[in-house]
Amino acid sequence: MENNKYFIGIDIGGTKITIALIGEKGEIIYKENLQTRENLDKNIASENIINTCKKIKNNFSSKNILGIGIGACGIVLYEKGNIKFSPNIGWENFEIVKNLEMALGLKVILDNDANAAAWGEFFLNYRETFRNVICITLGTGVGGGIILNKKLYRGSSGTAGEIGHITYIHNGKKCSCGNNGCIERYIGTKGIIEFAEEMLVKIKNKENPSYEKFSDSMLFDIQKKEKILMPKFIQEAGFKGDKLALFIWEEFGKILGILIASMINIFNPDAIHITGGISHAEKLFIESLKKEVEKRAFSVPRETAKIIFSEERQDMGVIGAGLLLMEN
Amino acid sequence: MENNKYFIGIDIGGTKITIALIGEKGEIIYKENLQTRENLDKNIASENIINTCKKIKNNFSSKNILGIGIGACGIVLYEKGNIKFSPNIGWENFEIVKNLEMALGLKVILDNDANAAAWGEFFLNYRETFRNVICITLGTGVGGGIILNKKLYRGSSGTAGEIGHITYIHNGKKCSCGNNGCIERYIGTKGIIEFAEEMLVKIKNKENPSYEKFSDSMLFDIQKKEKILMPKFIQEAGFKGDKLALFIWEEFGKILGILIASMINIFNPDAIHITGGISHAEKLFIESLKKEVEKRAFSVPRETAKIIFSEERQDMGVIGAGLLLMEN
Repeated sequence: MENNKYFIGIDIGGTKITIALIGEKGEIIYKENLQTRENLDKNIASENIINTCKKIKNNFSSKNILGIGIGACGIVLYEKGNIKFSPNIGWENFEIVKNLEMALGLKVILDNDANAAAWGEFFLNYRETFRNVICITLGTGVGGGIILNKKLYRGSSGTAGEIGHITYIHNGKKCSCGNNGCIERYIGTKGIIEFAEEMLVKIKNKENPSYEKFSDSMLFDIQKKEKILMPKFIQEAGFKGDKLALFIWEEFGKILGILIASMINIFNPDAIHITGGISHAEKLFIESLKKEVEKRAFSVPRETAKIIFSEERQDMGVIGAGLLLMEN
Repeated sequence: MENNKYFIGIDIGGTKITIALIGEKGEIIYKENLQTRENLDKNIASENIINTCKKIKNNFSSKNILGIGIGACGIVLYEKGNIKFSPNIGWENFEIVKNLEMALGLKVILDNDANAAAWGEFFLNYRETFRNVICITLGTGVGGGIILNKKLYRGSSGTAGEIGHITYIHNGKKCSCGNNGCIERYIGTKGIIEFAEEMLVKIKNKENPSYEKFSDSMLFDIQKKEKILMPKFIQEAGFKGDKLALFIWEEFGKILGILIASMINIFNPDAIHITGGISHAEKLFIESLKKEVEKRAFSVPRETAKIIFSEERQDMGVIGAGLLLMEN
């Protein structure tokens, strides 16, 4: 048997369950997808996941497989090894860790998918150089993963890191969480789209003389054609020099900068790691972001904290899940 | 020699330097104050502090004194044992740890005063029951001390916990830190006074019909008599049932509630511990605070986090400093 360590990673998402054999450098040796819709019953899911893991164990019996790490969407009880509620799939009280440990005789760790991905990023990129890293994932939501002293910080009941739901405007827009004015509501996908749409209305209505320069924005045409002004369209327009698109990204950078400055003042981290589709637009918002951070963060922690944008690495969910076994 | 452990605690503040012999239950065995103004020269300060420590060592030679813990105001480099800059005293690059260790042959730990006090609170009140506690000190400033996994979390360069300087209103009032709209600017002493004064002006000017009910507030007279509407006056008026005072505390509770909700969503702690003179007014703002937390914090971490108000314990600075030696 070779000396290298291997892990089975399981990434449970709303549309598919990915199961993979992962090496200790994060390499994927083998990967298989199950369709979530065929696993809505948790007993069936349990059986299918166990069978796939068994197959991997048998097919790679020469490899030193140390355990299984699971990253799951929904509310996950880390210490109990229980998926409490997974709204997209409908599972409740799924004791997945116990099931898998009994059937497979391997150590199993369960965490939420954001933590698993953040851990993967930290372990593969930063563990030699940094101790404290705040990971921010920008997408539909704004997710957080907190790594302190080289370990995931999970909080007292496993829910730490909901940085998308700190209050940005206290009497602001209603968020999906029920609260008003969460920062996610402004820099998540929905917030960006809404801001762009609101701007188009204001420009049409000539609400503000300073918006006149935006009146020939290509976003008007794009909206007609595409119906929804997805961030990728605003990004393309920005790279083509469209003034309104550039303005939208500038505003986005300001708000993200405020979030980052608060994280720097609270955590004094070595780095803020930012991933998600929107990181492609980095060049369009980095200046306004940096200006805001410089204005708002204290100098000592600001000089310490590196702000790093990275494309979301495909399969980081399943890789990070597998690597959870390397946390302790 | 008895078995109990003892420590010398040193609390370096803007007006006095307190040096005390502390028992492991936080009891003060002996205490002495030096006047900061007589120690503005760091060499003189060093000599005076060393002499006082020597005296304590000699006078309590039967006690098992394990080391010295220092909590200092200003910018403190924990790992280097260096007071980088103490604006109130004027010290720069004071290598206090090296000086004391060489002169006294004892282990010396240096941290900032907020961390020392937070650690004292945690060690004496919570270490058996809680793992993660966020300490908030309300006063002129809004200070934070973060205890995670039963240890102080200091961040990568020792400045973590500046929770008073997260942004509350992004285009808000100028804060002493140079930023706009820090939450400290609204719930620190200055913010409370200003809000009260602004309300009095608005009431006089009849800016809002709903303020008419405040027109006979006793705060008008108090302002005439006392010039500055210190929070303690507003507190007294509140306890006497003054409607305007009650409204001011209600608003205060909302903003503090927003801060607490954000801390709960980020840290998922066992407890939020709140100290400071203002905690006396707890009954006047607890309802609006709780309402805001209920609205804004996620249910699982909200149900986990206890919100605990406590009077600032006198000498917690010097006690916590001494107990820093018990952290590791």
